[in-house]
Amino acid sequence: MTDDYFMQQALAEAEKALAAAEIPIGAVVVFNNQIIGRGYNQTERLRDVTAHAEMLALTAAANHLGNKYLADCTLYVTIEPCVMCAGASYWAQLKAVVFGADEPKVGYRRHGQLLHPRTQLRGGVRADECATLMRRFFSAKRR
Amino acid sequence: MTDDYFMQQALAEAEKALAAAEIPIGAVVVFNNQIIGRGYNQTERLRDVTAHAEMLALTAAANHLGNKYLADCTLYVTIEPCVMCAGASYWAQLKAVVFGADEPKVGYRRHGQLLHPRTQLRGGVRADECATLMRRFFSAKRR
Repeated sequence: MTDDYFMQQALAEAEKALAAAEIPIGAVVVFNNQIIGRGYNQTERLRDVTAHAEMLALTAAANHLGNKYLADCTLYVTIEPCVMCAGASYWAQLKAVVFGADEPKVGYRRHGQLLHPRTQLRGGVRADECATLMRRFFSAKRR
Repeated sequence: MTDDYFMQQALAEAEKALAAAEIPIGAVVVFNNQIIGRGYNQTERLRDVTAHAEMLALTAAANHLGNKYLADCTLYVTIEPCVMCAGASYWAQLKAVVFGADEPKVGYRRHGQLLHPRTQLRGGVRADECATLMRRFFSAKRR
């Protein structure tokens, strides 16, 4: 199983968000090569700014393991996480965060290094597909 | 109603966390001089790093208003928020964040300005009481 495979799974979550007229971002959490948490952005349906894909996936993974620390887990998310989700990843002490497309405006990286020092970071996995989903959403919204 | 009064209410939430053997941080969200969301840290009980006092209070307030934007709301929290909670406050576009005691180690301010530009910030409200609760928790834990 590769980053590419798990990003496809995160993209499948993002497609669910798109179908629900939510900003199309999806995430999965992987432990021992298995997906133990999934999430897609639901801020509109839940009317809750905290309901980002990453947050839902992290909570699901912690529930699955019965452990709030996800030190052997990798978070895959289609778009560079925001400050809130980077902060949640910090607390979870993730092994790695892997994202698809950059998010220059509200991605956390413009604020420096917010992840846990132990957390590896990989970006640009299936970036075009991840970004295309976002463009489809926003161009449909403008019409 | 004053900052002092609402911080007492946040302290009452923090006392609930202390009684539950959680790191004693409490929060309330105020709209039109009324508390519309309460929360205390429940990361241990829920085994979920996202279950900070502020997150639970923001979600409760959004549920109450049926609106994820809390532009006319003030968040009171006993300890300076972390990066995750500052990020959630950014998305909620809060009118103000009022905290009790500084948190130099994991408070968001060491990473710069993470709140929404429209959000006012006030600190140091009942700081001694807020900090004392934390000290009581950690010194009991060490024993």
